[in-house]
Amino acid sequence: MKLQALADRLNCRLEGDGSVEISRVARIEDAVPGDVTFLANPKYLSKLPITRASAVIADEAIAGAPCAILRTADPYLAFAEAVAILNPAEPLPSGISPLAAIDPTAELGDRVAVGAFVSIGPRVRVGAGTVIFPHVTIGAGAAIGSGCVIHANASVREGVVLGDRVVLQDAAVIGSDGFGFARRRDGSHQKIPQVGRVVIEVDVEIGAHTAVDRPALGETRIASGTKIDNLVQVAHGVRIGRNALLAAQSGIAGSSELGDAVVLAGQSGVTGHVRVGRGSTIGAKSVVTKDIEPGQHVTGIPAVDLDQWREMIVLLRRLPELRQRIRELETRLAAVEDARVRPQQK
Amino acid sequence: MKLQALADRLNCRLEGDGSVEISRVARIEDAVPGDVTFLANPKYLSKLPITRASAVIADEAIAGAPCAILRTADPYLAFAEAVAILNPAEPLPSGISPLAAIDPTAELGDRVAVGAFVSIGPRVRVGAGTVIFPHVTIGAGAAIGSGCVIHANASVREGVVLGDRVVLQDAAVIGSDGFGFARRRDGSHQKIPQVGRVVIEVDVEIGAHTAVDRPALGETRIASGTKIDNLVQVAHGVRIGRNALLAAQSGIAGSSELGDAVVLAGQSGVTGHVRVGRGSTIGAKSVVTKDIEPGQHVTGIPAVDLDQWREMIVLLRRLPELRQRIRELETRLAAVEDARVRPQQK
Amino acid sequence: MKLQALADRLNCRLEGDGSVEISRVARIEDAVPGDVTFLANPKYLSKLPITRASAVIADEAIAGAPCAILRTADPYLAFAEAVAILNPAEPLPSGISPLAAIDPTAELGDRVAVGAFVSIGPRVRVGAGTVIFPHVTIGAGAAIGSGCVIHANASVREGVVLGDRVVLQDAAVIGSDGFGFARRRDGSHQKIPQVGRVVIEVDVEIGAHTAVDRPALGETRIASGTKIDNLVQVAHGVRIGRNALLAAQSGIAGSSELGDAVVLAGQSGVTGHVRVGRGSTIGAKSVVTKDIEPGQHVTGIPAVDLDQWREMIVLLRRLPELRQRIRELETRLAAVEDARVRPQQK
Repeated sequence: MKLQALADRLNCRLEGDGSVEISRVARIEDAVPGDVTFLANPKYLSKLPITRASAVIADEAIAGAPCAILRTADPYLAFAEAVAILNPAEPLPSGISPLAAIDPTAELGDRVAVGAFVSIGPRVRVGAGTVIFPHVTIGAGAAIGSGCVIHANASVREGVVLGDRVVLQDAAVIGSDGFGFARRRDGSHQKIPQVGRVVIEVDVEIGAHTAVDRPALGETRIASGTKIDNLVQVAHGVRIGRNALLAAQSGIAGSSELGDAVVLAGQSGVTGHVRVGRGSTIGAKSVVTKDIEPGQHVTGIPAVDLDQWREMIVLLRRLPELRQRIRELETRLAAVEDARVRPQQK
Repeated sequence: MKLQALADRLNCRLEGDGSVEISRVARIEDAVPGDVTFLANPKYLSKLPITRASAVIADEAIAGAPCAILRTADPYLAFAEAVAILNPAEPLPSGISPLAAIDPTAELGDRVAVGAFVSIGPRVRVGAGTVIFPHVTIGAGAAIGSGCVIHANASVREGVVLGDRVVLQDAAVIGSDGFGFARRRDGSHQKIPQVGRVVIEVDVEIGAHTAVDRPALGETRIASGTKIDNLVQVAHGVRIGRNALLAAQSGIAGSSELGDAVVLAGQSGVTGHVRVGRGSTIGAKSVVTKDIEPGQHVTGIPAVDLDQWREMIVLLRRLPELRQRIRELETRLAAVEDARVRPQQK
Repeated sequence: MKLQALADRLNCRLEGDGSVEISRVARIEDAVPGDVTFLANPKYLSKLPITRASAVIADEAIAGAPCAILRTADPYLAFAEAVAILNPAEPLPSGISPLAAIDPTAELGDRVAVGAFVSIGPRVRVGAGTVIFPHVTIGAGAAIGSGCVIHANASVREGVVLGDRVVLQDAAVIGSDGFGFARRRDGSHQKIPQVGRVVIEVDVEIGAHTAVDRPALGETRIASGTKIDNLVQVAHGVRIGRNALLAAQSGIAGSSELGDAVVLAGQSGVTGHVRVGRGSTIGAKSVVTKDIEPGQHVTGIPAVDLDQWREMIVLLRRLPELRQRIRELETRLAAVEDARVRPQQK
């Protein structure tokens, strides 16, 4: 593909020779002639002058490229598109494996692909074009939208609803029982039947080994466009808004609500029965223990405003110095007190 | 079902009209006429006056309900029973799928249900009435009790023992190899064969993506009535007492012991070779690094007594103020010192 | 097996009667006559005088054993070998199940074992002697080395490369899509196709429910001899050196690099785009947010040098005392100031 043609498809302004042949997108340090690369994270700016790429996708502020430049206000988005154009993925499988176990009451749409050893229960509906990899289990009465991709070993439990274009990575579990028990007088725990619904709206992606629990009552709901990484816990009755991002190993306890566009950084947590306002960001390894207003950036255990947390961390590291200053004050003050007392004793 | 009949079954004292027809349990904010709801968490008290439910399960202290009340000392327990009575779950599957692979030396009890693509190894025993969902793998020589429910994609490794009425959520792994390696002189790691036992006693529930490792020697044991949430790590040689609760994403390192009724809150951890006494609670995101006496409530990294932790957190947030007070002391003391010196210089 | 023969095989110097028959390795508190035990962790030293074992593996410093001693400079390593010699594991399965789905273009080496319901995709290669348990899914074009053991429900995605003698515990996922999205102007997220490679070198072990993601570009690589515990997240584009140890529930964000022999303790994390130098240790529950030099031991959130962290923790717990000292200084200084002022007022 000629660089000019790529620039046109990416809606980028080309600086340089558009007749160069481009065959691949590569990382700035791996690129060779014939590759296009990108610069979106300033951390990699020092690698620009020595890249061997034939072209770089960059914003208007970047200078010093030893190659052609594809200018755009949003290099990371153009990079995403360039990968889709130039670096083809392994094609998705097609057809329905004779080794799948599909209940006769299940309804599959056009061009649905079903891998070996997939188990599809009674009354399941699967929309057109959805691809189901081997070993997926879909429980009774679940409804899967069209254009979904469900990777191997995922579990979609009974009655779960997945919207269109949902992606489940390998071994994701949707609709497992919430952790709901009532304590009996003797200290043992009575299970509360978890018979509520789980609804995953359109364009949601859910990572490997992520669990989305069903509640006893009502529903657990993840709204459209939200993306969830690996090993995340979404407990019973949680509601997540649109276009949220939940990084790996984060977790949300029962009945909490995240607004649209909330970001949970890696290994963070939200306790039960709280609300995190629209557009808020929760820092890595933080824990939210109370409601958070929209648009906040909080971090820490328990989470506080980011600026407050930074000041706390700086002072925490200066505690030895503060203790020393207290010691010196004590010594100096004792000297002053001593001087006041001794003259009187004279 | 008439409200009076429900009250009788739940052993509640009815205040109001017992002839109302009740068809469902619902959350206080979702309830409509014909529903019974419950009030167990004071956070939801403000929703009581505006609920549309026909009845509410509540303790004697609650007033102001706009509907009938089912009085009980333990509303959450009565709620759990009401859900079981009124909100039916999808019935469990029955029968043995012709698509399962069951070793001829395995012994299955009466009314065992085995889903498609279940793999049951040699010398496995499965007790009466146990339900095994699709894609479960049961290794050689494992012994499964009666009345268990094993959800899809779970792994029960060779030789593992599960007691009666154990529930495994989807993709739980019981009996994976402990993380045991001995360092060789050249820095490489020699695997210590993990050939010990794993015993899960009766009435235990284990969440989705939770791993319970086998040890090299001895056993990993989870005592009866303990409930474990999703994505929990139980390492090799751990012993957990009766009726413990381990919330999501918590973890216990090798050879540690938890007493009866211990509670691990979400994302907490226990390091290796320590004991947590009976009835102790470990706060969310905390790490226990040494033995904990019975009945303690500890939190923090590393965990300390909850009251001590609260005082530390308050003071941590007041560090800027403390630093300011130190500065002022320094300024004021310097003025005092200066005043003492200058008169002498006169 | 005679104790003398065992001593010879373990390269230990025997103190005591070599004619004793030894049949098992056991923990020091469980051992009975006929067992050999070991002492590697000083925490268990108090159990030595009362052990009922016939022999103990210990280093030269240990005294007071009531039984024969197998002396070695490295008791833990000798213990690992003793377990392999004396405590036999369940034998690995052999043969190719007629219930496996193996693509005709896949190539299997000699003595490969394939369990029931294993799905092996097109163009997959599996080396000699590799054992694949039931329900494993191996995607198109993946290459598996020889002598590997892949436990049940693991996913090896398309194009993934596993070296020789790799062990995957149950439900490990290798090659799931990295969490890569570019934000569109309207706040929605465009998926960046994750079409890079994942390479796991020789002698690597990966725990249950651990996920190793593929990147958009380049590769995710785990070098030889590294051992990874359960529920660990290895994000897209991460590079891990040789003989590293990653404990349970740790996580590494995108594009970070760990040097050889790095140790991540349990529940620790490494943020994106940082380097952790060779031989460094990251403490439990810590988070690394910037590059770490080789050979460091860091801990905390964010991680700092271990000694600095210890001093911080001590002072954090002494904050109530420091505040009290500040209060007393304020009172005493006020008294001094007051005394200076009052005489002037006289």
